[in-house]
Amino acid sequence: MYTLARNYSKLTDRILRKSLLPKICSIEDSLRFFKDGQAIGWSGFTPVGYPKKIPVALADKIERTGEKMKFDLFIGASVGAETEDRWAKLGMINRRWPYQTGKNIARGINTGKIQMGDIHLAKFAQNLAFGFFTKEKGGKLDLALIEACEIDDEGIILAGSVGATPEICQIADKIIVEINTTFRSFRGLHDIEEDLKPPFRRPNLISRVDDRVGSTHLKVDFDKIVAIVESDQKDNGRPMSAPDKTSETIADNILDFFQNEVKQGRLPKNLLPLQSGVGNIANAVVAGLVKGPFKNLQVWTEVLQDTMLDFFDNGKLEFATSTALTFTPEAFDRLYEKWDFYAPKICLRPQQITNGAELVRRLGVISMNTPVEFDIYAHANSTLVGGTRMISGLGGSNDFLRNGYITIMHAPSFRKTKTDPYGITSVIPMAPHIDHTEHDLDILVTEQGLADLRGLAPRQRAKEIINKCAHPVYRPILTEYYEMALKDCLARKVAHEPQLLDKCYKMQSNLAKNGTMRIDKW
Amino acid sequence: MYTLARNYSKLTDRILRKSLLPKICSIEDSLRFFKDGQAIGWSGFTPVGYPKKIPVALADKIERTGEKMKFDLFIGASVGAETEDRWAKLGMINRRWPYQTGKNIARGINTGKIQMGDIHLAKFAQNLAFGFFTKEKGGKLDLALIEACEIDDEGIILAGSVGATPEICQIADKIIVEINTTFRSFRGLHDIEEDLKPPFRRPNLISRVDDRVGSTHLKVDFDKIVAIVESDQKDNGRPMSAPDKTSETIADNILDFFQNEVKQGRLPKNLLPLQSGVGNIANAVVAGLVKGPFKNLQVWTEVLQDTMLDFFDNGKLEFATSTALTFTPEAFDRLYEKWDFYAPKICLRPQQITNGAELVRRLGVISMNTPVEFDIYAHANSTLVGGTRMISGLGGSNDFLRNGYITIMHAPSFRKTKTDPYGITSVIPMAPHIDHTEHDLDILVTEQGLADLRGLAPRQRAKEIINKCAHPVYRPILTEYYEMALKDCLARKVAHEPQLLDKCYKMQSNLAKNGTMRIDKW
Repeated sequence: MYTLARNYSKLTDRILRKSLLPKICSIEDSLRFFKDGQAIGWSGFTPVGYPKKIPVALADKIERTGEKMKFDLFIGASVGAETEDRWAKLGMINRRWPYQTGKNIARGINTGKIQMGDIHLAKFAQNLAFGFFTKEKGGKLDLALIEACEIDDEGIILAGSVGATPEICQIADKIIVEINTTFRSFRGLHDIEEDLKPPFRRPNLISRVDDRVGSTHLKVDFDKIVAIVESDQKDNGRPMSAPDKTSETIADNILDFFQNEVKQGRLPKNLLPLQSGVGNIANAVVAGLVKGPFKNLQVWTEVLQDTMLDFFDNGKLEFATSTALTFTPEAFDRLYEKWDFYAPKICLRPQQITNGAELVRRLGVISMNTPVEFDIYAHANSTLVGGTRMISGLGGSNDFLRNGYITIMHAPSFRKTKTDPYGITSVIPMAPHIDHTEHDLDILVTEQGLADLRGLAPRQRAKEIINKCAHPVYRPILTEYYEMALKDCLARKVAHEPQLLDKCYKMQSNLAKNGTMRIDKW
Repeated sequence: MYTLARNYSKLTDRILRKSLLPKICSIEDSLRFFKDGQAIGWSGFTPVGYPKKIPVALADKIERTGEKMKFDLFIGASVGAETEDRWAKLGMINRRWPYQTGKNIARGINTGKIQMGDIHLAKFAQNLAFGFFTKEKGGKLDLALIEACEIDDEGIILAGSVGATPEICQIADKIIVEINTTFRSFRGLHDIEEDLKPPFRRPNLISRVDDRVGSTHLKVDFDKIVAIVESDQKDNGRPMSAPDKTSETIADNILDFFQNEVKQGRLPKNLLPLQSGVGNIANAVVAGLVKGPFKNLQVWTEVLQDTMLDFFDNGKLEFATSTALTFTPEAFDRLYEKWDFYAPKICLRPQQITNGAELVRRLGVISMNTPVEFDIYAHANSTLVGGTRMISGLGGSNDFLRNGYITIMHAPSFRKTKTDPYGITSVIPMAPHIDHTEHDLDILVTEQGLADLRGLAPRQRAKEIINKCAHPVYRPILTEYYEMALKDCLARKVAHEPQLLDKCYKMQSNLAKNGTMRIDKW
């Protein structure tokens, strides 16, 4: 890791490959490369390191002129609402893979106007490179639009995320670069290895969280770069709310579990590399670890959030790898102020690597993610409310849960509705959409308790999940369902995983009709 | 690969580590190591390389004496019915992980008497070694019972499968070995690398199907070996029926698809390593490849069946890796007769390696498996008929489908019932049990046609699957369901993946009541 002397410099100082200087143009000028029907890839991940100026300028133009332009949009994960969500509002998105956030884009997807598909994030990047998403264009993208810090003769220094940018640049016919001059260069923070396609793939030699096997640069074909513009728009990562009581109780349950695993010899004293999703519970878990008894910890995850800086500050976190720095502006300021302290402890990698089965399994990652809901046999729904309405997408949850050493899903046991403070239970008879199967999940945890499902058969799991995870107001309802299903299936000699297909979604119907999943009778 | 001079020799000639000779005992004698309540691991995989004498002798004894003995049984996959199924019949099994076959054992599972759990086979082996299945015994097994060909100072030469035997021997307190003297030693066929636990795991350096990175021996702690007995019982792998017309049409659809992928540049001329499940369709695909235009093919799969020998014979198959030789006695005879021709082209590896995400992804395996059924959004059920009745288990299907380069599921579009020649459709609105999610599957194929789902959003997928895969008698029924669900979900603005939770299992109810999934109206 080496540090850049140049800071907050002007655009031309950031383009050390001087043959590219003639490609500098105004944002307005760069818009001529956009044409209706194009397949476009952007840099960016949850929402950092994405192009911020050109998408907005193009949207402004479309709004002004009423011109019709629709794109197929491929981005590692979500980007800022002012870009993709605005595009959705203006009807500029035909297809969107594999994740998104924003009211307008979600509405477009759920009203049949936008074709969205979600897929494991590591698989997304490779399948994009294989040409599977753009078969009609010979596997290519028309355009890549990426944010960067610098360009020199070795390649591009990316900004706050890597995501699927390497694959996007690899298959794009043309590349447009937004160089962000509002913050220092992130030179030295990235590790990007070229991923060859089968049958030429080689072993990835990372065997520790802090191993480096690639380049600090994204190597691209410079001849593809058709325009370079300056960006003066800062990143604006996810704000976080302070952990609530429920999240803290869930975090306590998980920390107790870790302590027992260490005691039983199933985890080393400094645990194993931690993966933690986004959201309140994830933050509470990290906050708990910051205060907790474990030292020399490591993180191997998808996004680093603000609390990771506290974790570094108190010396308990040794190293963290992710594919994005999902920091708030305040946390970015902290990072820049103590750059020489934090930067050597952080590595940003492509999402194929952070989320890839190979590394998640090898490193023995402890995976923790929040689902919408899970059922009494440990199938979890992460994506579709009521089985049909898309929220954001699968994201990397199954990349980690399918391959981790210990795989944990955490959720509050209930949520309120307008008419019932306990209107929605997270523990249900049968998940109406399944992203994670019973074969993937080891531990389910709510503020009520922790169900350790390792080695349990389905009928044993049902009891454990109902008794440990369900809220007391739902426990009798779920128990009654399970016993009814068991009786019926035993009578028919089909009782490996008892269910009643004519009743299993009755709680969901009741929610739609009466505003609560608390049903009076089955 | 080196060959053994000794063939069909007597027991003592197969024990080259002479300090172990005193451990030779009679089968009757070896039974004293079995005690009620033990957790036991066996060698064996789908059903080859499993202990054949001692389990039968113990069953005989239990039957004779009426003694009560119940075991927790951990085996890589299924073994011969005369062993585990007989144990089930005699009430000798308490728990069974992660796969099984046999009428009695299935009945025990589905009537609540046996606690079975299934899990991805690669994950099973590692989680067993992590101690997750036997937490109550400190992560240990009381006993390992394995079949072998030889023992020398380097370790044990296994028989026709590797499976989870390395992990079983690693965590067992005691090991009993059945040395099978009815066939030649398989010395040289295996490649077994020690798998360390996180945080000490290292990269697996295999980058070609024929790479070797381990030992021909299973290295064990010799002091754990408490008994060695002789086995005179041959393996008796799965018999295969000749491919029927439906299977051949499915295979033709797949071969056409391969040819187009090569033409489009998405597959090399010799394809990529092939994984093919068991059963009629898998055999038809291999038979199609034997006759087909592709040369220099490679196989990376779980079990090798008889047709692979034809494939080698005609020179089109270069190399095959699996974790078991699931041959019929006739095929084993062919193997022994032309050992020097076949053996250098075959490598048997642990199921953690053949099925492991790391290798399946790196090599770019083309994965092909048969489900029970799949739904209009590409979720597939491989395990539970009607969502509740266990057939055999997940097996390795998701190991390959989750990580392969192109992932294919194939099934006949319909099956008959007693009252309707088209009584069961394989294409349904919503799978009542999900082992493979929409995020895993690229291609669905029946004798009706092939649906290429890569890059399609759920609503597009539904049309493609109904039109390409469903049988004509079910196409209008499914189309009506989809359109009804679409209309309803659009009206509620929740139409990413339209479903009607109160109707989605109506075909299953109709099957139970009226013997057919053909319903008159929704």
